[in-house]
Amino acid sequence: MQSTKEKLHRIIFGVDTPAGKGFDIALLILIVASITILMLESVREINQEWAALFYKLDWIITGLFTVEYGLRLWTSEKKTQYVFSFFGIIDLLSILPTYLSIFFIGSHALAIIRVLRLLRVFRVLKLVQFMGEASKLGEAVKSSSRKIVVFLFFVVIVSVFVGTLMYIIEGREHGFTSIPRSIYWAIVTLSTVGYGDIAPQTTLGQFLATILMVTGYGLIAVPTGLVTVELAKGSTNALNPSGDTSRQCRQCGNADHMKKAKYCCECGEALQ
Amino acid sequence: MQSTKEKLHRIIFGVDTPAGKGFDIALLILIVASITILMLESVREINQEWAALFYKLDWIITGLFTVEYGLRLWTSEKKTQYVFSFFGIIDLLSILPTYLSIFFIGSHALAIIRVLRLLRVFRVLKLVQFMGEASKLGEAVKSSSRKIVVFLFFVVIVSVFVGTLMYIIEGREHGFTSIPRSIYWAIVTLSTVGYGDIAPQTTLGQFLATILMVTGYGLIAVPTGLVTVELAKGSTNALNPSGDTSRQCRQCGNADHMKKAKYCCECGEALQ
Amino acid sequence: MQSTKEKLHRIIFGVDTPAGKGFDIALLILIVASITILMLESVREINQEWAALFYKLDWIITGLFTVEYGLRLWTSEKKTQYVFSFFGIIDLLSILPTYLSIFFIGSHALAIIRVLRLLRVFRVLKLVQFMGEASKLGEAVKSSSRKIVVFLFFVVIVSVFVGTLMYIIEGREHGFTSIPRSIYWAIVTLSTVGYGDIAPQTTLGQFLATILMVTGYGLIAVPTGLVTVELAKGSTNALNPSGDTSRQCRQCGNADHMKKAKYCCECGEALQ
Amino acid sequence: MQSTKEKLHRIIFGVDTPAGKGFDIALLILIVASITILMLESVREINQEWAALFYKLDWIITGLFTVEYGLRLWTSEKKTQYVFSFFGIIDLLSILPTYLSIFFIGSHALAIIRVLRLLRVFRVLKLVQFMGEASKLGEAVKSSSRKIVVFLFFVVIVSVFVGTLMYIIEGREHGFTSIPRSIYWAIVTLSTVGYGDIAPQTTLGQFLATILMVTGYGLIAVPTGLVTVELAKGSTNALNPSGDTSRQCRQCGNADHMKKAKYCCECGEALQ
Repeated sequence: MQSTKEKLHRIIFGVDTPAGKGFDIALLILIVASITILMLESVREINQEWAALFYKLDWIITGLFTVEYGLRLWTSEKKTQYVFSFFGIIDLLSILPTYLSIFFIGSHALAIIRVLRLLRVFRVLKLVQFMGEASKLGEAVKSSSRKIVVFLFFVVIVSVFVGTLMYIIEGREHGFTSIPRSIYWAIVTLSTVGYGDIAPQTTLGQFLATILMVTGYGLIAVPTGLVTVELAKGSTNALNPSGDTSRQCRQCGNADHMKKAKYCCECGEALQ
Repeated sequence: MQSTKEKLHRIIFGVDTPAGKGFDIALLILIVASITILMLESVREINQEWAALFYKLDWIITGLFTVEYGLRLWTSEKKTQYVFSFFGIIDLLSILPTYLSIFFIGSHALAIIRVLRLLRVFRVLKLVQFMGEASKLGEAVKSSSRKIVVFLFFVVIVSVFVGTLMYIIEGREHGFTSIPRSIYWAIVTLSTVGYGDIAPQTTLGQFLATILMVTGYGLIAVPTGLVTVELAKGSTNALNPSGDTSRQCRQCGNADHMKKAKYCCECGEALQ
Repeated sequence: MQSTKEKLHRIIFGVDTPAGKGFDIALLILIVASITILMLESVREINQEWAALFYKLDWIITGLFTVEYGLRLWTSEKKTQYVFSFFGIIDLLSILPTYLSIFFIGSHALAIIRVLRLLRVFRVLKLVQFMGEASKLGEAVKSSSRKIVVFLFFVVIVSVFVGTLMYIIEGREHGFTSIPRSIYWAIVTLSTVGYGDIAPQTTLGQFLATILMVTGYGLIAVPTGLVTVELAKGSTNALNPSGDTSRQCRQCGNADHMKKAKYCCECGEALQ
Repeated sequence: MQSTKEKLHRIIFGVDTPAGKGFDIALLILIVASITILMLESVREINQEWAALFYKLDWIITGLFTVEYGLRLWTSEKKTQYVFSFFGIIDLLSILPTYLSIFFIGSHALAIIRVLRLLRVFRVLKLVQFMGEASKLGEAVKSSSRKIVVFLFFVVIVSVFVGTLMYIIEGREHGFTSIPRSIYWAIVTLSTVGYGDIAPQTTLGQFLATILMVTGYGLIAVPTGLVTVELAKGSTNALNPSGDTSRQCRQCGNADHMKKAKYCCECGEALQ
């Protein structure tokens, strides 16, 4: 027979029982409510009217989160493993800011870390397929990470170089007040964001900016090309037009042949 | 023999008779005229002079649209099916705003929904090929929709997180007046739009913005890669442009030839 | 023996003789000089000092261009064909603005059409390979033109719709002074240009803008995907991994086989 | 036995001994320190307080770099080859600005060229793989360089043309004060940077800008497509991830197998 602790563990950590699923959905609603309150608090007009309510609600939610954290800790068999797991750290960091706000004014907004708790949504909804998609995207990014590091190194060198040149050309009077600020401008331009809070005014500066923009135009092609090729690799259908997975070998069960194959490439058995 | 109702039905819903085609083209012209009037009305200088004319024309067009809606309803055999079809709803929503403007001032601009009626243009011009292209694009987007959901979820999490951080770092005095507004800034930056109506002023804020921009630079690669791979899948020609797998060799059974092939490349037998 | 007319024709239209090449290079230098003068004239500080010189130089260059046009006309055998050819029209339009500026002040800047004469550069430098590249790019764009039309139609519908919505939500006081101007804002946002001359101020407006930006983020993937797939089609090496152009058939000379081919697919002859 | 010169050469130019590696790492730290000082100097508030310290540190580092340059020159066997090599020139240009700043005020910031010395980082960390990635990216860009030249030529022609048109349409009073400045605006728009320091105000100007933006939207697809196709070519794995053409069947001569194949798919013979 299950002890209360074991039952609770199943409800809190599991998603395979109705109670477990209900618990997780309630938790997600609480998290979203908590983030919404945090956002509304930051809007002055709304906060002036509802500050007292928000204050109470926030403490209630933090209290519930604290109880939940205690229960998770109590019902875990391997306590240290939970505490130092990804979600264990997030769970702790989600309740700390409210307590800290007693001592440090302003630290409350750090409670935004709760948004990371929403990542549980994948587990709750048993979105295994979505997790698969996410991991595919992750792998595509990971396997081109070396190329991306080289690319970023190049972007940084170009930005530092062009930023300093613009600092010399445009100078303080045109908004390029320091080299770090000029580098900031170079990245704003190279990434095609272009706020326009700093913009070149001299003809020479505008000419250099023009070259930087066209470079940025070409540069944007590099990460896109890298990720596309990686994604294409992952997608066998797209890029193995001569492959055939519809025939299975009678002898070894292998179903990954070339279209033209007459014999199984695993065991040499003739294919139908 | 056809009744008047049947004849009208063929004219209004069909595009295969000269009358039916003429009806649809007249309708398209009316829709474009109606949208043009709506636009011109919103330009103060033009409206001051022509307000009376616009008012009359708008009521005439709405009247015609109302008659058309009535005829469509009358000639339809399955009335409820028409009313709740995509175009049925658009047709109704296109005439309502003008009538509503009698009671609610300002609701008139909602008549812009008429722009959706222009989608009929594909049917009228019998642009089957264009429809095919549109549906291919649609399919490419649809089959990568799961990946896109994961991607958007990631974008939202990053925006909420960075937005709140910037609210803490930059604060009200630099334009980051609330968390929702800071999140708005984060998305403006991440999408490389970069209005510049809000821009970081502190060194720390600019440094964080820089990282966000470079991230956005890389992120833009993900939907592009996804759509490209999907489009490449749809386009089998793209991946083996000269290949042909529809003909099988009578002698050796090989079905993987070049399109231009006259003889089997495996056994030299003539192909049909 | 060649007449003077024939000799001149060869010099002016041909690029295969030293004189013909020299003539074309001199022409290109004149065109660049003419455009540079036009640009410098528009800079107030420079023009104040050099106006008289620019005026003279411009008339001299226009005079030379007029003489050249006369010679081209005289030496052409099929005069009407030249006059209505692409370069014939450009040549005429290049000299007209200077003459028109006698009657209409300000029309002079139209002489910028001379920039199109620079397209001759490809012919002069015999950049056949570059022409090939240009035509490949052009074909890639052309063969995806139907998809691009559908895509642009979609962009226009979205822009008109969102633009009008923003006009209703934000209104005149926030810069959305008319529907056409709001549509302009929508395209500025959707294309991720983001000037920031008009920007939403209300929370609802910013929320809608956010959705539009994320849409634009995804939309940019569509033309990129289309062009990439088209370019990939053109590049046989990239996408026909099973192709082989290194073996030539002894019998018919065909050199485009599959890697695995044992017999020529054109004539059935055995390959080495 | 090695002379002092030979030992020093191995330390300074080599990275295979602990001393050689230590030397290079110390050098990299010095370079980063030097660039950091240069950046901090340009921030007025910091410089006011620490100017004297920065001045001393900068001269110390420049002194060390000068000694290093002398040693490199002395220990090189082929002195002229080193002086005119890429790193030889960078090493010299890195120390010159500080000496020049005695004579020319302001020339000091040119010392930013030291950032290029950081490229040694690849050699020091023996990042052969990273070098390989960098060269692959470089090759992809190089082999599409002809297409990119044609593309840039097209971008320049469009920018000059549209820029001049906007100068005529919008005129000086709306910020389009000269043709070069209008061309600058056209490139800012076409590259989707969009500072907003210059923006069209008239309806006609906004309409033309709209067309330019949509063009830029499509244009961005071209370099992306080119680089993607080139990268895909370089990555043979991408295009036939499971294929293997290095093994030939002893019996039938077929060389087109899957990587994992143990038996020939054509004749069933065991593969080596």
